[in-house]
Amino acid sequence: MIIVMSPGSPKAQLDRVVSRINSLGLRPHVIEGTERTVVAVIGDERSIEAAGLETLPGVASVMPILAPYKVASREVQKEPTVVRAGSLVIGGTSIAIIAGPCSVESRPQILDTARTIFRAGATGLRGGAFKPRTSPYSFQGLKEHGLELLKEARDNTGLAIVTEVVASEDVSLVSKFADVLQVGARNMQNYRLLEAVGRSHLPVLLKRGPAATLEELLLAAEYILDAGNRQVILCERGIRTFESHTRFTLPLATIPWLHARTHLPVVVDPSHGTGHSSLVTSMSAAAIAAGADGLILEVHPDPKNATSDGGQSLDFSAFENLMDVCRKVAEAVGRSIKNCEMNPVEEIALPGMPR
Amino acid sequence: MIIVMSPGSPKAQLDRVVSRINSLGLRPHVIEGTERTVVAVIGDERSIEAAGLETLPGVASVMPILAPYKVASREVQKEPTVVRAGSLVIGGTSIAIIAGPCSVESRPQILDTARTIFRAGATGLRGGAFKPRTSPYSFQGLKEHGLELLKEARDNTGLAIVTEVVASEDVSLVSKFADVLQVGARNMQNYRLLEAVGRSHLPVLLKRGPAATLEELLLAAEYILDAGNRQVILCERGIRTFESHTRFTLPLATIPWLHARTHLPVVVDPSHGTGHSSLVTSMSAAAIAAGADGLILEVHPDPKNATSDGGQSLDFSAFENLMDVCRKVAEAVGRSIKNCEMNPVEEIALPGMPR
Amino acid sequence: MIIVMSPGSPKAQLDRVVSRINSLGLRPHVIEGTERTVVAVIGDERSIEAAGLETLPGVASVMPILAPYKVASREVQKEPTVVRAGSLVIGGTSIAIIAGPCSVESRPQILDTARTIFRAGATGLRGGAFKPRTSPYSFQGLKEHGLELLKEARDNTGLAIVTEVVASEDVSLVSKFADVLQVGARNMQNYRLLEAVGRSHLPVLLKRGPAATLEELLLAAEYILDAGNRQVILCERGIRTFESHTRFTLPLATIPWLHARTHLPVVVDPSHGTGHSSLVTSMSAAAIAAGADGLILEVHPDPKNATSDGGQSLDFSAFENLMDVCRKVAEAVGRSIKNCEMNPVEEIALPGMPR
Amino acid sequence: MIIVMSPGSPKAQLDRVVSRINSLGLRPHVIEGTERTVVAVIGDERSIEAAGLETLPGVASVMPILAPYKVASREVQKEPTVVRAGSLVIGGTSIAIIAGPCSVESRPQILDTARTIFRAGATGLRGGAFKPRTSPYSFQGLKEHGLELLKEARDNTGLAIVTEVVASEDVSLVSKFADVLQVGARNMQNYRLLEAVGRSHLPVLLKRGPAATLEELLLAAEYILDAGNRQVILCERGIRTFESHTRFTLPLATIPWLHARTHLPVVVDPSHGTGHSSLVTSMSAAAIAAGADGLILEVHPDPKNATSDGGQSLDFSAFENLMDVCRKVAEAVGRSIKNCEMNPVEEIALPGMPR
Repeated sequence: MIIVMSPGSPKAQLDRVVSRINSLGLRPHVIEGTERTVVAVIGDERSIEAAGLETLPGVASVMPILAPYKVASREVQKEPTVVRAGSLVIGGTSIAIIAGPCSVESRPQILDTARTIFRAGATGLRGGAFKPRTSPYSFQGLKEHGLELLKEARDNTGLAIVTEVVASEDVSLVSKFADVLQVGARNMQNYRLLEAVGRSHLPVLLKRGPAATLEELLLAAEYILDAGNRQVILCERGIRTFESHTRFTLPLATIPWLHARTHLPVVVDPSHGTGHSSLVTSMSAAAIAAGADGLILEVHPDPKNATSDGGQSLDFSAFENLMDVCRKVAEAVGRSIKNCEMNPVEEIALPGMPR
Repeated sequence: MIIVMSPGSPKAQLDRVVSRINSLGLRPHVIEGTERTVVAVIGDERSIEAAGLETLPGVASVMPILAPYKVASREVQKEPTVVRAGSLVIGGTSIAIIAGPCSVESRPQILDTARTIFRAGATGLRGGAFKPRTSPYSFQGLKEHGLELLKEARDNTGLAIVTEVVASEDVSLVSKFADVLQVGARNMQNYRLLEAVGRSHLPVLLKRGPAATLEELLLAAEYILDAGNRQVILCERGIRTFESHTRFTLPLATIPWLHARTHLPVVVDPSHGTGHSSLVTSMSAAAIAAGADGLILEVHPDPKNATSDGGQSLDFSAFENLMDVCRKVAEAVGRSIKNCEMNPVEEIALPGMPR
Repeated sequence: MIIVMSPGSPKAQLDRVVSRINSLGLRPHVIEGTERTVVAVIGDERSIEAAGLETLPGVASVMPILAPYKVASREVQKEPTVVRAGSLVIGGTSIAIIAGPCSVESRPQILDTARTIFRAGATGLRGGAFKPRTSPYSFQGLKEHGLELLKEARDNTGLAIVTEVVASEDVSLVSKFADVLQVGARNMQNYRLLEAVGRSHLPVLLKRGPAATLEELLLAAEYILDAGNRQVILCERGIRTFESHTRFTLPLATIPWLHARTHLPVVVDPSHGTGHSSLVTSMSAAAIAAGADGLILEVHPDPKNATSDGGQSLDFSAFENLMDVCRKVAEAVGRSIKNCEMNPVEEIALPGMPR
Repeated sequence: MIIVMSPGSPKAQLDRVVSRINSLGLRPHVIEGTERTVVAVIGDERSIEAAGLETLPGVASVMPILAPYKVASREVQKEPTVVRAGSLVIGGTSIAIIAGPCSVESRPQILDTARTIFRAGATGLRGGAFKPRTSPYSFQGLKEHGLELLKEARDNTGLAIVTEVVASEDVSLVSKFADVLQVGARNMQNYRLLEAVGRSHLPVLLKRGPAATLEELLLAAEYILDAGNRQVILCERGIRTFESHTRFTLPLATIPWLHARTHLPVVVDPSHGTGHSSLVTSMSAAAIAAGADGLILEVHPDPKNATSDGGQSLDFSAFENLMDVCRKVAEAVGRSIKNCEMNPVEEIALPGMPR
């Protein structure tokens, strides 16, 4: 930590800063510059509240030196973490594709989607059963029944289930059905929930909040890691900016920045990150080119009739095209996406939804 | 809702939009412009998912007309809501001052603060017992013991207790001690928590999330109102922007904008909104001039030793000066702040913290 | 400047940093911390390019200590600058009100407005003759004829003329008519223009760009000051954020932050800062409460027919009401606004615009 | 344009809106909804000031329907514009690489860079001779001498010269040496400059301002197009957001969004868009995957000694590696980048800078 003194601050104020640092068990090191005096603080600054030091008379500003996260850091673990949930592997040389509807709506919807994305090369199925919705008047999800449908889809395809948990009290129920627990962007700083999924045995996909810095994202991951769960996947899904032509602004420099600082894998959500299906394929290809370890995508058999997020959902043929494009880009950057599945999935009668 | 068709979209696409609107139980009204065809949708658009319509072929964009919130709206209730919690009244002509430390740290700290702010004219005492902290390594609050100390401070001064609840499972415990339940900015879209405080009998102070639009804030309030609790106080506490000289950017135009659209009272948090105690008095005065119904402020007997948020906390003399300034500004805009208290508070022995 | 070395960087990299600092004529001071080594650089870091140092092997980050502006700084000049242009005085205990239309449109429009605002207590008249417009198809201003009309308004009222100059080649023409040269937000970093107004003998009102940090604003001022013109007024007019209910977000903490760091006066533009006339009075009062040295406001005799910015312009009666409110708030914070003018302005026949 | 009336606004207010629309030569179309009355305005709304209508009593909001740009629009020209400047071709199936230093610093620096990037497959050479710098104390460029050095580099390699012009009065001088005139981000709304380059015969590379919406970018392009110059290249170089780990946030969804709305080619500047050389290769690959028509990159023989922007400049070997990566990604998305140049460039003696 570097403490910058105000110009012209008297010696007594400096002495007080020095003695405060000493009393915190750290070591102060005073440097007299030509225009400013600064105090370098030697020791583990993470243990103290930097902000309080700012209020000491004569202190102009306080600048931390150490990153505030530990377990998530590359300094602690050099080799990348590879997260595994059945056939879904995130963090190696292959790129994982997780796809599915925003909300689980019906048996034919989820089974039909699961089979289609499985054939196209996805290894994870996303689908919301508990839905956090901005308005209390919007569809809130099928809840436990939705989880049962997801399980049936897994049994039918082998896809790993990635589904959101919105409250700590739901973790045990959702864990009965899910292969990966998703913590949504709105809950990135719901610490009680982070602690609960941290105590779970399942991998956690943690979405970046739309106003969160990357340090805050890593600190949220740190809550999960610190509770004992080392299977954390970070997800960039866009931030709030002044741009209004997209739902959020999707900043892909997140990917190489995180890869340099953390061993945790990074996936990207171009569906929420843009909010418009017409932009999803381009941004998926871009995410892979930028080094993403996976994608999480909204796919729906009939987007115009979706109960939520229809505007950003791909239909089946758009998804199949996306997979073709992304497979080529993955190869161009020395990685791979699972090929289309040639082994037929056993067809189940799906009443009411002809393909 | 207005649906704008793409230029040159064929008649068949328009027909499909029209028939879709009809099938949703709404009434389409087609207007052929010189360069664009638009479809005005007549009926309650809140019941449908606008986003799905965007994916219909030929649709360029969909623009909602109605505000998505209802119960929070001035259209539903013209007269302002006045929230009452003992001596704390928010929403009338007088302006409520809620002050206190970020975290409850000790008995002398909270009792000393309570008596000081009471004497200066505050009617509410803030103080965190359950603390949501960005880092898992930061002080997380005294929890139930903190609540007991807050209760003692109320018994000693008559101040209403405003304290944060971070999870639905804590609502009943916190409600035993609190007069107002605070939902923090990080939890503004924690819907399970909103529903839980909505079922409580206590007033709720709902903080705006740093990336939330005002519509999203009102929809979060709507969750609480919809659950049956009409005592909601909205709180502006700053948004995330590119500005880095303040912790957040505090946009005071929020106040008149909200007052024009909702009957709910609006308070401002200049401590979090700026992050620097040197800016708090100016922004408090500004908030009152802009029409705020109250302030919520961080005050600490010894900010440099605070366990959290020391950099933005006022010491006692700065707080007393702030009250003087704000009282004059309140009068200038035709409102008032409770005068300094002349009736002595019974002194309790506070070991270990001489004033 | 503080240079933070990467953890585990070898001694040779540190040596290279040290020798680079020495070669720049500055003095390196190495501090070995428990987890990081940092190099404090002693000397005037403003002379060097910090960014280049970041690319040295082993350097993790570079943090400047000194503010990059000099002449604008409080450290160089302790007492506040007071800018004077005839009856318009900005920076003392009184608060200056500059008002007028976005664009000068006609003789009756500008004369009528000038007389009205003069009577209400304004001392400056704003009005654009050269208009920077987002679209090439929008009204671009009356140009020299507009300047002549502004001069007539000054002759008639004594108001100082504040008008925008958009290009260095126009400075001499505009200077013939103006009392204060305005540099618009879009031109805050048009350095050729800054240099040109810096060589002028007239005061300059410099608007903050919507994406500019306050350091960038002060550096833009520094261009003007460095060219020899010490009469600079800073103007906060709102920044671009994700908020869409206002045209810009108006961050009033700018005012006390700037007052602590620069001797230059600070005015606020609540018209552009909100974009909606219904929010202007509240934000004007708030700006004064926060310590603004003046306001610059859009006032139009008939906003709905304005050629530009009608939505944010006040009509005469709204302006007169604003002046009443602001006068009281100014007094509450120990300042004053000129009283309503009792001496009649000589009436000039204004054909075509009855009041 | 859609005008939304306030709920409960009396008939007389609606009549006034209708008559105002009529008086503007447009046709009003009133639609009575269940909760709101809206007026659809038929005709070319671009000719009127929407904002003024907002101030009419009873008007709640005004929503434009038509995009405000015309000549830049895909509706006016369906086929993509291909911009040509010698060997530099932007907008076809091949992807153009423009590279070079931030500032022209010396003859060896620019000639050495030019030959290196030429060999690696670039077709354009960037380099600033007139530099807009945030601080008046920073290096401001070699000016005309810099232009002469750029010309020598072109004569030596055949690379097209892309260089910035910062003021309308410099356009004729810069045009003597440049092949493409660059308008920098700070000048995106310097309309006098846009008009001047619009009258030039040279192609213009127009950079997006860091707070500009894409509509504003297209309207800035419209100024150039409207002045008669149809050779405009749009450049995404990052926007200002709350993110601080990168200099700007680089939003690549810009590319497909613009391609859908305008025929103008789009290039990306990952050097300014990230500010850190370690992120540039990833974001270059991502930009190409997202559909960019070209890249503009900062390359310097010795970044740590650069006079400007050293932190974001690639050295020669990093640039050569970037070209390898980008060539593969370009092929993956069905495009191509010029191969490495096998024909030797005539070596010129470059005193003082051994490679």
